[in-house]
Amino acid sequence: MDKSFLIMESRKSNAFQPISDALMIQMRQILGEQYLSVDETVRHDNGHDETEDLVFLPEVVAFPETTEQISALMRICNEAFIPVTVRGGGSGLAGGALPVEGGLVIAMKRMDKVVHIDERNFQVTVEPGIITENLQNILKDKGLFYPVDPSSKGWSFIGGNVNTNAGGPRAVKYGVVKDHVLNLQVVLANGDIIWTGSNTLKNSTGYNLTQLMVGSEGTLGIVTQIVLKLQPYPSQQLLMLVPFRSAESACAAVAAIFQAGVTPSALEFMERNAIEWAIRYVGETPVPLNDEDQAHLLIEVDGFHLESLYADCETITKVVEQFDCGEVFFADNDAQKTALWKLRRNAPQAVKNNSIYKEEDTVVPRYELPRLLRTVKEVGAKYGFESVCYGHAGDGNLHVNILRGNLSDEVWNNELSKGIREIFVFVKSVGGTISGEHGIGWVQRQYMDIVFSPIEMELMRGIKHLFDPKGILNPSKIL
Amino acid sequence: MDKSFLIMESRKSNAFQPISDALMIQMRQILGEQYLSVDETVRHDNGHDETEDLVFLPEVVAFPETTEQISALMRICNEAFIPVTVRGGGSGLAGGALPVEGGLVIAMKRMDKVVHIDERNFQVTVEPGIITENLQNILKDKGLFYPVDPSSKGWSFIGGNVNTNAGGPRAVKYGVVKDHVLNLQVVLANGDIIWTGSNTLKNSTGYNLTQLMVGSEGTLGIVTQIVLKLQPYPSQQLLMLVPFRSAESACAAVAAIFQAGVTPSALEFMERNAIEWAIRYVGETPVPLNDEDQAHLLIEVDGFHLESLYADCETITKVVEQFDCGEVFFADNDAQKTALWKLRRNAPQAVKNNSIYKEEDTVVPRYELPRLLRTVKEVGAKYGFESVCYGHAGDGNLHVNILRGNLSDEVWNNELSKGIREIFVFVKSVGGTISGEHGIGWVQRQYMDIVFSPIEMELMRGIKHLFDPKGILNPSKIL
Repeated sequence: MDKSFLIMESRKSNAFQPISDALMIQMRQILGEQYLSVDETVRHDNGHDETEDLVFLPEVVAFPETTEQISALMRICNEAFIPVTVRGGGSGLAGGALPVEGGLVIAMKRMDKVVHIDERNFQVTVEPGIITENLQNILKDKGLFYPVDPSSKGWSFIGGNVNTNAGGPRAVKYGVVKDHVLNLQVVLANGDIIWTGSNTLKNSTGYNLTQLMVGSEGTLGIVTQIVLKLQPYPSQQLLMLVPFRSAESACAAVAAIFQAGVTPSALEFMERNAIEWAIRYVGETPVPLNDEDQAHLLIEVDGFHLESLYADCETITKVVEQFDCGEVFFADNDAQKTALWKLRRNAPQAVKNNSIYKEEDTVVPRYELPRLLRTVKEVGAKYGFESVCYGHAGDGNLHVNILRGNLSDEVWNNELSKGIREIFVFVKSVGGTISGEHGIGWVQRQYMDIVFSPIEMELMRGIKHLFDPKGILNPSKIL
Repeated sequence: MDKSFLIMESRKSNAFQPISDALMIQMRQILGEQYLSVDETVRHDNGHDETEDLVFLPEVVAFPETTEQISALMRICNEAFIPVTVRGGGSGLAGGALPVEGGLVIAMKRMDKVVHIDERNFQVTVEPGIITENLQNILKDKGLFYPVDPSSKGWSFIGGNVNTNAGGPRAVKYGVVKDHVLNLQVVLANGDIIWTGSNTLKNSTGYNLTQLMVGSEGTLGIVTQIVLKLQPYPSQQLLMLVPFRSAESACAAVAAIFQAGVTPSALEFMERNAIEWAIRYVGETPVPLNDEDQAHLLIEVDGFHLESLYADCETITKVVEQFDCGEVFFADNDAQKTALWKLRRNAPQAVKNNSIYKEEDTVVPRYELPRLLRTVKEVGAKYGFESVCYGHAGDGNLHVNILRGNLSDEVWNNELSKGIREIFVFVKSVGGTISGEHGIGWVQRQYMDIVFSPIEMELMRGIKHLFDPKGILNPSKIL
């Protein structure tokens, strides 16, 4: 699909200013000529992420290499009222990296250094521009484990992961990004440089600026260094795929597995159409798909003692058998494991390849998953949309992909949001929220009133104003 | 020791007002006559915590039972410029609960209900006034595990734990309070009631108000309900006590245990005098203390499979033997385990019983522990103080108890802070900070400049002002 016709005029609010020639000269002095671009292609490449089909063109794209350069850029942009949007790998699904007000995009890809691997303290200090999987591989070579692996890990940046508080399959055992960030170096809107915390596992010293920054989607400051805590790399993993006769029985089995005392390192749910599309997209069929299989759970356990993992798998098998499952498939070797994970990881791309879609990142207490799934289908029937659901069932985090199919422009652009709203109202009613790991960005902020009261929203606006009084950092996002 | 002569005049700042008769009438209407007290003993009991020998008398003590009552109290106190300090179990070691500006103390002990145990989702919703150990026992009966167990768990309240971001021995494996809080109900300074998040394991929806509130020591709002995530209760624990010929070799062994791939569920360090004093205080000698034993590590592993725990213990034994240790003592039965834990848990009381002391809650990356310990002793030699050190070595969290001994008033009150400052400067220089789990409260705020820059402090002041524009909530704390 040619995206160019969808490019939107960036909507510069009154207060923001265009980037003047004088400012361009200053920026070139800061970065060096070749690291500032007004090229059409470069602007386009940095004007979209993976959110639907949205593109907003920035005026200028900067490629800094140091914290000091970013600080210098922010100082002059703040002075001159230039909107600034930071960009990582561009894998975002909520439009967090879209420069919707134009202005400057700061692309982080040159800031990709591993600053220090502290093997003695199980910590690593990195710049935000490193690809998450590359970082994980570098650490694995030293026996160190950074467990957070969003599906996009092969191309998303660790900085983007921090900014969205990303999760991924292993969050169910190891937690999300916020549980692994110890300390952050941040450039504030006015160019000031701070560290948010300390390089320690515990910290009760003042307000938790670190956690305030994690997940703030570049609206409070620009993360320029990240200190992550690490663990010893678990030497053993076992993986199993379990088919179920109904999506609801698969979801019901999820809570039961935890109640049996097992905490898997991944517990992924896929509806039948998700796994079918993924098989077709990947072009591999690692397991036979039977007619009666309506959903699958991909279940991994990991650790250091194989015997206890086998015991866990036995417990899991006994549990799932109570939920109308088909034959449990154990991945016997690394090739089979890779093939199964490839299916799950490619489900989003398979959907994208099939249809224009909107992805909703619903999250509920995990026992509520079956009801959430039922609600999604009921709302779909009411508004006439099909959906493909998969996600991190162990966390209650269900990705609802709403397919455009034959929906008219009118329904797609205007009516659909009412259906999404109904799903979110249900999510809120059972203690859930509207984003588990993707963030709010640009496309979800219209729904924030469902989960936050006016008072809560006012507090968030106050925090934004405190950190960024002129509102230049990633404007029009979240709030 | 008679504390009465140490009672300080509460230092009411100019802006704050005394509680008028009219206000007293309103408060009585809100709470009921018997739940508002101006009694001298009640005021005294609510005027100190476990911090040194400090007492500040509040004007009035309130004992609310509901969120709505607290909201109503805050509305009128905010209006009338009355300082309000919330009080939990009173086990604080940084003076967080001291009503240093007088005014109203809100004592949480009647808000001690378990609102809802959600066994299906492994969550519990509680009021802040429940004693942490009581909550743990209630949950354990249902096979559920809330792992955060500060040494004070037998009398500290869960609300206080949240407000200080408490830790305890098991934080090394399970994390601190912040890693277990999903959602908080909070009464703001003006009486507004908010919820900070959602009851989900993941949340990327707006700014993380939950984590901003955890550890804020009652300066940003009053926590009135807490949603905690739970885990299945680990059925097996193994405990060992390892003596070392030097405190430094004990510290050095700590990092090596993790490097060998084992994550103990507790890894506690005690200097010789700490264990000696604890043995004397408790009146039990579960293990013989040899002359050459200069320090001990108490090491616990837990899980569901005994075999793999034995394997972990074997690995640990091999590691510690490389660090000049004495004979490793395995606790064979529950009585022995209880006796060993009793020693560790009573170390603070043993010190308190022995001398007036100041407790510093230093935390560093754990490999730096030996250097920290050396620095403490060097600074002690320079300023003429003895110290007893113990703590959560697995987290790099060393409690430094500075004994008053024969120090003159002049040295104790004025000179000593210079020595503490030297220790904290070292801590900061190796990436550590000045409180790992006790908080800053009243007595540590003078050292905040060591770990935070003026810009960082200004951000924290801005957050305080946003949440509490009149500064009535726990005034003169942290900042």
